[in-house]
Amino acid sequence: MKPIKINHVAIVVQDIDAALNFWEQTFGLKLDHVEDVPSQKSKVAFLPLGESEIELVQPTTSDSGLANFLEKRGEGMHHICIEVSDIDATLAELKSKGVRLINEVPEELPGRKMAFIHPKAANGVLVELYQLTENN
Amino acid sequence: MKPIKINHVAIVVQDIDAALNFWEQTFGLKLDHVEDVPSQKSKVAFLPLGESEIELVQPTTSDSGLANFLEKRGEGMHHICIEVSDIDATLAELKSKGVRLINEVPEELPGRKMAFIHPKAANGVLVELYQLTENN
Repeated sequence: MKPIKINHVAIVVQDIDAALNFWEQTFGLKLDHVEDVPSQKSKVAFLPLGESEIELVQPTTSDSGLANFLEKRGEGMHHICIEVSDIDATLAELKSKGVRLINEVPEELPGRKMAFIHPKAANGVLVELYQLTENN
Repeated sequence: MKPIKINHVAIVVQDIDAALNFWEQTFGLKLDHVEDVPSQKSKVAFLPLGESEIELVQPTTSDSGLANFLEKRGEGMHHICIEVSDIDATLAELKSKGVRLINEVPEELPGRKMAFIHPKAANGVLVELYQLTENN
């Protein structure tokens, strides 16, 4: 497999508007847009930074892994997303190597296919894999 | 201030060689080199990824913030490093805006000047700032 780049680093926050006060107003990142992602029970602010993005992720329900993470560990880095060219081949290769996956089949969203590797397989890091599927 | 790009994401690990087994052998990143960083009481493996790097950081003593982090929270993402063009101006601007800093004066290492923003100022994220000071 051939990882291409960091697509984004996701930071879980209690409140996106309050968090933008630091990341946009103080730190100088530009907000691209805020998007509801019902499948992940979250709302996401996208802040481009070089070829990557910082994503501020706010849980929109209390029953998600993200909400549990926020309750247990507080705000902070939640996951890193790495872009690959062929996510199906990547998942098959990782599976054949015995890597513990959260999603063996990628979820398809407009413009991207995504899957998570279990943090126990990656030194405590929740790694998301992305394959871009159209210009977005 | 104008953040340029993600310079690296640092992952704290118990053992760099064991961690390379996943990140290099299984995940397919290329190891550039491993470096002792005595001023940070750590050993660091640099794995380029796009315009950024993944850094695996192993404490080399038990009396550092990094070692404490590892003991309390276990392996995982430790900090994100963002490149800026003028770190002195950036720190002055952040200070004038009341942002809590760990280093008000950057540390100078060959090829780079570096300073940390306190995680309490940045939604629980330990943010390192880098200014490259020569080709490296």
